[in-house]
Amino acid sequence: MTKVAILGGSGYTALELMKIFLRHPEVQIEAITSRDKEFPHIADVHPSLAKRLDIRCEVFDARKLKDRGVDCVFGCLPHGASAESIKQILPLGMRVVDLSADYRLRSTAEFQKYYGEPHHDIANLADAVYGFPEVYGDKITAAKLIANPGCYPQTGIIGLLPLVAAKEVDLKNIIIDSKSGVSGAGRTPKLNTHFPECNENFSAYNVGKHRHTPEIEQTLGDVAGETVEVIFTPHLVPMDRGMLSTIYAVPKRSFTEPELYEMYRAYYASNPFVRIREALPTTKDVTFSNYLDIALRVVRGKIVILVCIDNLVRGASGVAVQNFNRMFGYVETTALI
Amino acid sequence: MTKVAILGGSGYTALELMKIFLRHPEVQIEAITSRDKEFPHIADVHPSLAKRLDIRCEVFDARKLKDRGVDCVFGCLPHGASAESIKQILPLGMRVVDLSADYRLRSTAEFQKYYGEPHHDIANLADAVYGFPEVYGDKITAAKLIANPGCYPQTGIIGLLPLVAAKEVDLKNIIIDSKSGVSGAGRTPKLNTHFPECNENFSAYNVGKHRHTPEIEQTLGDVAGETVEVIFTPHLVPMDRGMLSTIYAVPKRSFTEPELYEMYRAYYASNPFVRIREALPTTKDVTFSNYLDIALRVVRGKIVILVCIDNLVRGASGVAVQNFNRMFGYVETTALI
Amino acid sequence: MTKVAILGGSGYTALELMKIFLRHPEVQIEAITSRDKEFPHIADVHPSLAKRLDIRCEVFDARKLKDRGVDCVFGCLPHGASAESIKQILPLGMRVVDLSADYRLRSTAEFQKYYGEPHHDIANLADAVYGFPEVYGDKITAAKLIANPGCYPQTGIIGLLPLVAAKEVDLKNIIIDSKSGVSGAGRTPKLNTHFPECNENFSAYNVGKHRHTPEIEQTLGDVAGETVEVIFTPHLVPMDRGMLSTIYAVPKRSFTEPELYEMYRAYYASNPFVRIREALPTTKDVTFSNYLDIALRVVRGKIVILVCIDNLVRGASGVAVQNFNRMFGYVETTALI
Amino acid sequence: MTKVAILGGSGYTALELMKIFLRHPEVQIEAITSRDKEFPHIADVHPSLAKRLDIRCEVFDARKLKDRGVDCVFGCLPHGASAESIKQILPLGMRVVDLSADYRLRSTAEFQKYYGEPHHDIANLADAVYGFPEVYGDKITAAKLIANPGCYPQTGIIGLLPLVAAKEVDLKNIIIDSKSGVSGAGRTPKLNTHFPECNENFSAYNVGKHRHTPEIEQTLGDVAGETVEVIFTPHLVPMDRGMLSTIYAVPKRSFTEPELYEMYRAYYASNPFVRIREALPTTKDVTFSNYLDIALRVVRGKIVILVCIDNLVRGASGVAVQNFNRMFGYVETTALI
Repeated sequence: MTKVAILGGSGYTALELMKIFLRHPEVQIEAITSRDKEFPHIADVHPSLAKRLDIRCEVFDARKLKDRGVDCVFGCLPHGASAESIKQILPLGMRVVDLSADYRLRSTAEFQKYYGEPHHDIANLADAVYGFPEVYGDKITAAKLIANPGCYPQTGIIGLLPLVAAKEVDLKNIIIDSKSGVSGAGRTPKLNTHFPECNENFSAYNVGKHRHTPEIEQTLGDVAGETVEVIFTPHLVPMDRGMLSTIYAVPKRSFTEPELYEMYRAYYASNPFVRIREALPTTKDVTFSNYLDIALRVVRGKIVILVCIDNLVRGASGVAVQNFNRMFGYVETTALI
Repeated sequence: MTKVAILGGSGYTALELMKIFLRHPEVQIEAITSRDKEFPHIADVHPSLAKRLDIRCEVFDARKLKDRGVDCVFGCLPHGASAESIKQILPLGMRVVDLSADYRLRSTAEFQKYYGEPHHDIANLADAVYGFPEVYGDKITAAKLIANPGCYPQTGIIGLLPLVAAKEVDLKNIIIDSKSGVSGAGRTPKLNTHFPECNENFSAYNVGKHRHTPEIEQTLGDVAGETVEVIFTPHLVPMDRGMLSTIYAVPKRSFTEPELYEMYRAYYASNPFVRIREALPTTKDVTFSNYLDIALRVVRGKIVILVCIDNLVRGASGVAVQNFNRMFGYVETTALI
Repeated sequence: MTKVAILGGSGYTALELMKIFLRHPEVQIEAITSRDKEFPHIADVHPSLAKRLDIRCEVFDARKLKDRGVDCVFGCLPHGASAESIKQILPLGMRVVDLSADYRLRSTAEFQKYYGEPHHDIANLADAVYGFPEVYGDKITAAKLIANPGCYPQTGIIGLLPLVAAKEVDLKNIIIDSKSGVSGAGRTPKLNTHFPECNENFSAYNVGKHRHTPEIEQTLGDVAGETVEVIFTPHLVPMDRGMLSTIYAVPKRSFTEPELYEMYRAYYASNPFVRIREALPTTKDVTFSNYLDIALRVVRGKIVILVCIDNLVRGASGVAVQNFNRMFGYVETTALI
Repeated sequence: MTKVAILGGSGYTALELMKIFLRHPEVQIEAITSRDKEFPHIADVHPSLAKRLDIRCEVFDARKLKDRGVDCVFGCLPHGASAESIKQILPLGMRVVDLSADYRLRSTAEFQKYYGEPHHDIANLADAVYGFPEVYGDKITAAKLIANPGCYPQTGIIGLLPLVAAKEVDLKNIIIDSKSGVSGAGRTPKLNTHFPECNENFSAYNVGKHRHTPEIEQTLGDVAGETVEVIFTPHLVPMDRGMLSTIYAVPKRSFTEPELYEMYRAYYASNPFVRIREALPTTKDVTFSNYLDIALRVVRGKIVILVCIDNLVRGASGVAVQNFNRMFGYVETTALI
């Protein structure tokens, strides 16, 4: 039995974590922290948890978490706030899976550029492992601090991994056109996610400057061993959850679709969550699950890759538990299938 | 040509008014006020108006509106704020159609009870005419100040009018179960209208204590000449616009459906917007229009009335223009059909 | 370990059953039948099952199911077709949970009236137990044939049970105004459930004559020991799943809200799925779960009861598994919490 | 006054045409044909037209339409069926705007390739003018037969026109990633547009082989004077209407965003419907209107163009009326602004 704590219990990724852990036979949710001074019962924050999880939110206190035997802390706070807490947790020997962006980028310059502020915890940055199991699997097992990836990078990286690893495509000429459900924008009400603005509407946002861009490039660069550049265009789909990325890559040699399928099937043969499919996947095929569905096409000599995930499960809390399972020696798919 | 001004240009009813007036051959939108200190161009507030309406928002100044020849002012401000402005407008001789709740209830005690604050302009309250054309038609024509009705009351009143006028139903035993699209909640982002909360969700709210209840009772009471009591239950439907009310009434004598239909068809024979239909109406039959669709059923001896409207058109800005057309001598349907 | 077969694997209730059973530690899905002559793999019928359930659909053959050790058969066929199969299953000693309407009504006259055709299997009708655990719990445990209830009746019955059992309300004066997500209409494409017709739309249907009416009256009548009459109005909400019923009842004596709450809390104290809540429930609080959330209000002396369920889980496949768990001696909540 | 007839009145483009023409001061809808043998009243086919359009559908008879003085016939039939009717109309001297695909492609080989059948009316094909006002404006004015463009091509062509005309981009390296509301799929119920399948879902379809591809290439090829090749990927968005295309082009020289904006503003300076915007457009900015909103970005040296339209208005019936206005000498924007 492993005891976990969740920092920042009011958001969607925290809720998703709790739902997954309620099904995990080896995990006990020991504490949920909140910056809400009234310390509400978690069922008042997330009514769907009524009768399922009987915990009252508490103020964050790293020492107390340690004293109560917490083994692993999940950070569901905004970037910045997350690092401030994690600084206090790591010295006490608890391990951390951080769902914020604080430790994802190795370059503090890139962090400054994309997040508009200096990095909050350079001291621990070098120890952070980017929690993408298909790329950093072994490092994850041993990690003290996992920087859980953003939702968009999950589709971009998983969709390109076999081709980039084999350097079969032009690494400076990749387009990732992504479409995400609205839960990806978090639980804080804003005008663009106000129902009558967002419903029956479709739009692109942050074209060419979304914060997930450097994560994708950093990870694909690690895989390729050289610089990778992507044009990344996120869009907002009027639906709760689900994400589809349409990826365009230029192969260095001619590819047929059967060749492509063979390559991807081989690459992901032992992966429990990747499903290579002939038919075009839809987001609904994967929502509320940790699967990543991929289809491949060759159009006018270029490669078109379609990848679907649930942005809150594999895009956030599902992969967080996948990383956790690796870290604590559980079967990787526990509570996720 | 009549010059109009719109107070509070950033909300949904204001936008709807502008769209209707852009089609009105006899109206010029002279001014739009906003409490936004940056005085944005209206197309920056409502991008759909780009190239269609070239006006910059301005600060409210009753005197200036008068000097520029404004004939009629439409109030699209929250209650309270609305009365504060209207107090300054009426003495200058401009007529007003107020879409807020400030002048709807004749009883200041009821206002205090439902809105939790004292009335803001008792002096002008007596002059206000509730803008329900089917009930107060002649008074509307002559009115200086129209209290434009709430959205829910439109369905409740229009659906019950023939039976209540004829006193054919138990006036103390009426249930109005209403369902509204989310635009009825306004344009200010809140948690319950945040897309991932509101989408794929259905709920009741303010059961038995919604502010539109006394409007319905006051108007039906006027028609009946005695007290009317309703149980009113509003619900939120995950769609932009449209409203359906399912009304249950207990007849004093036995009714057949053909009798009911005959009664309603006769009552609304000359009404240009009421459509009495055999088939059950859907909200989509009326959205983006000023029509009110009604179907009638007798179930186990009770009467079930179904009424659909668009909550922003007939439920707010459409009936506002209908009232305006009556006040200024235009054909009632101008810009509305 | 119990072996189950599912008849009619292509619909939504079948899919939901499979997803629940994939989490049930004591159940093996042995067979899925389909009337599709191509006998597709179930993952081609429901892509979300890829990698999760490796079964090819087969033609229905009761004898073969028996020979392969099937203990319990779940009928997910349309009414009529369901009885034709079940007739062949029961004599072989397999137990049945039928999700169709075939065995729900004890009166064949009512069946004829509401379904427009004679009953298909009068011989087995007397053995059928209506699968509402809160009413027929003990009979369910011993049943050979469970008539799984319709979705709407779940909300109507659970919402009224305490008051009807205590005969505290007028049994001839009950209104159930229900709102359901579209998956309740099944998986066969029709014009009224075609996306551009159904989306951004809200409507009532089958007012006063919906087929679930006699189920509600039969069960509440059993509880009361006398005839109960309801006015039942179903509506279609533009969302996938979830159901809310707003129930209006007239108490025989004066009730306060605290009294009501005390009554309901006592009645459902040991029920693992009923959640009595002060706050008004929303359908999203219960979707993808087997919970039934109830709130209670007193308005102008009448009782207003709000009940939410997921129409596919507690409204169909969840309660089916609840019944199954009782029949086969498993903890009632297995795979459902 | 011009008399028009609409062939195939039951679909969405026909409904949209009727709504536009009800606002057109110089048009009378003389006839609506239907293949429905019961010749329903149009308000039974489209309930939103009740009280607005009092016409009963009739069987198609070209001679009768001519005798009743019809000047222009709008074809809203499926391809194939459309040509069969138009063959009979043209010899009688009535002009035609065909919203089907029958006359869009000059190459009968391409028609065969993409539509899987031989062309139905080669005789009239040479006379057809592709109804894209920004490209074929003068020819449209004189045309007897307009092949009204598909919805997707509107966004692709308008978005690329200035750059392709100036040959500033690589004409063999264009990606059009398009997202459309579901009304674009027509009114015939199918599984993939069944509400519970389509809602809360997002998917690509016909990747690399959609029928609108050759239209785009043909028109851009005309503009460039040489072959243009595009990779076109359509996606389905869970909303009624609206379309956004994200277009990726590789410039032959370096471009800044201000240069791009200057180029597009100059090119479309006199166009009444194109709105060049700094902010990223959303589909809701243009739905229910004939506007085309465009924003431009330069990302890593490549050009990203975002174009929004309403797929039923500018994507079909709006541009059809725009073409009609040109053909019959009305102001191009009549009934469209």
